Amino acid sequence: MTRTVNRRIVLAARPVGLPRESDFALEEVSLPEPGEGQVLVRTLYLALDPGMRPRLDPGRTYAPSIEIGGLLEGAGVGEVVASQHPGFKPGDFVAGALGWQTHAIAGGRMLMRIPRGELPLTAWLGPLGIPGMTAYFGVLELGAAKAGETVLVSSAAGTVGTFAGQVAGVVGCRTVGVAGSARKCEYVRQMGFDAAIDYKAAPDLGAAIDQACPDGVDVYFDNVGGAMLDVVLTRMRQGGRVVISGAVADYNLPPEERPGIKQTLLFITRRLRMEGFVVLDYRTRFPEAIQAMTEGMAAGRIRYRENIITDEADVNNGITRLPGAYIALFRGEGLGRQLVQIGAAPAAAEPQPV
Amino acid sequence: MTRTVNRRIVLAARPVGLPRESDFALEEVSLPEPGEGQVLVRTLYLALDPGMRPRLDPGRTYAPSIEIGGLLEGAGVGEVVASQHPGFKPGDFVAGALGWQTHAIAGGRMLMRIPRGELPLTAWLGPLGIPGMTAYFGVLELGAAKAGETVLVSSAAGTVGTFAGQVAGVVGCRTVGVAGSARKCEYVRQMGFDAAIDYKAAPDLGAAIDQACPDGVDVYFDNVGGAMLDVVLTRMRQGGRVVISGAVADYNLPPEERPGIKQTLLFITRRLRMEGFVVLDYRTRFPEAIQAMTEGMAAGRIRYRENIITDEADVNNGITRLPGAYIALFRGEGLGRQLVQIGAAPAAAEPQPV
Repeated sequence: MTRTVNRRIVLAARPVGLPRESDFALEEVSLPEPGEGQVLVRTLYLALDPGMRPRLDPGRTYAPSIEIGGLLEGAGVGEVVASQHPGFKPGDFVAGALGWQTHAIAGGRMLMRIPRGELPLTAWLGPLGIPGMTAYFGVLELGAAKAGETVLVSSAAGTVGTFAGQVAGVVGCRTVGVAGSARKCEYVRQMGFDAAIDYKAAPDLGAAIDQACPDGVDVYFDNVGGAMLDVVLTRMRQGGRVVISGAVADYNLPPEERPGIKQTLLFITRRLRMEGFVVLDYRTRFPEAIQAMTEGMAAGRIRYRENIITDEADVNNGITRLPGAYIALFRGEGLGRQLVQIGAAPAAAEPQPV
Repeated sequence: MTRTVNRRIVLAARPVGLPRESDFALEEVSLPEPGEGQVLVRTLYLALDPGMRPRLDPGRTYAPSIEIGGLLEGAGVGEVVASQHPGFKPGDFVAGALGWQTHAIAGGRMLMRIPRGELPLTAWLGPLGIPGMTAYFGVLELGAAKAGETVLVSSAAGTVGTFAGQVAGVVGCRTVGVAGSARKCEYVRQMGFDAAIDYKAAPDLGAAIDQACPDGVDVYFDNVGGAMLDVVLTRMRQGGRVVISGAVADYNLPPEERPGIKQTLLFITRRLRMEGFVVLDYRTRFPEAIQAMTEGMAAGRIRYRENIITDEADVNNGITRLPGAYIALFRGEGLGRQLVQIGAAPAAAEPQPV
């Protein structure tokens, strides 16, 4: 039997607050050939997601922790190396939750075959991947955003935030993004938002929202949580919807140190609804969203930026760059989707003419 | 023109924390005859509602404060004395937001004519009034409670809480009530709940919920808010619904002193939904709910207790008892719906045989 050397990053220690390099460890394991129904994938690109942070903490049933010694999780695209599943053959490209490793053995049902076309492979980690799907179903299903309404998006310079504003814009909403610097706000406007609020420069966030959203907020697409959510609640219109997509402000704090939502009475007086979701619950409807996002991209309404870290000395050594790149996410410096190249992409991975 | 002397209670000062007698004042005004489309009503019974408390604070657009000098608000039943509305004639009984006064002039559209039958007039302040309607639409519409699910109700010994558990029980849910004393818990079980939790006697509310709700909570019908809500969130099942019906723990605290909801991440991992409502938004569907509640009463599934304060020396002097009775609500001592008799009921107000 051929065995494959797999290099992977596991959780070495539970982070206290901001993760550190020493919380992660690189290890080598040997993989067998895929079993019946399984596929062996060589990872090409992995995306970094700040949303993984709460899973590094000890958890309960519905938010299972990653165990000490367990593989870190992340979406990736890769190339099929060997397959015991009828839907995949060597040379196919796939997207899925590959994890922080150079090779993955996955059940075929957990992978999506990437149709080759004019789009780069990495689009399946962006507008056509989990971030795009999260924005699409969050804004249109949970948020039920309708033409003429005002949609406020926090962490609007983030990948999901960017798509959320753009999806809302496509259906005719006024879109306002909140971000943490003038540079990010400029980026938010470049990405098509009608207005941007630099919350770090605004002495009074509520007043800044009043100015940018004179009629109030119909849908708040929230990636942040924390104190900002409580302020936005005071600016919601009657019947407003809060979509909890992420809560990055809370990820690094134990519950007792979080500021908490105190404006609960407004849920009654203004008939507010707040709802969270896991986008994979909408998996069967991804094709509809992928088509809409592809059309939006063709029309120039859905745009994105990606930043790919490649180990220049050895492109197949990108796995070692993951912990540092992940930690840097929490410093809030980058613009666009953060990817790490894990392996050399074959020529066939280049975009093909239609 | 005949003028009617109206005795009413107005807000004399904004309460700081718990309301005091000196925050209220009795005054006498003279009412004209009703105008076109209006009805003059003599108040018979008023219900006291702790939910009025936030309106005694200075407020914003969507939760208008009661002005200093303004009439206190409350649901009541009364007898029509004079009418310039084709739908009402003297001697009719009506329910509506009459306010803390012996006589009200109201637009006919704001009043509901009470069909005479086998039920006492005061049922229209309980199961067939706003409390019953709140429970019905909260549990079945927002909560979308289904047979076999577990419904947890806070302030379960309160009027709305009692009906919420009973409505959930009628559709086949397991019902668990949270209340603040052994006496209240006994009452909750008498009212038909499957189990009751005395939160003041439970050293660990979460563990007590685990015991009473071994599969977790599908619907939390919340009348309390505050720290209890945050604990219950940790016990919600995937796809759970939180219905914000009231937040009595928060009414007497400014936002910065409220404990706040800190378990926001669970909204994502467990796909939770939290929603508030104002039951009058469902006004057009009240007939459906009134019929269901009436059937539930006939079947013995919907039960209630009312406590009527009457000024024994002068039944028409009950208006003076309102402030004290209202303040006593916040001490959490009473069981059942708290009513104050404002005027002598005519013989025709007695229940009629069907």
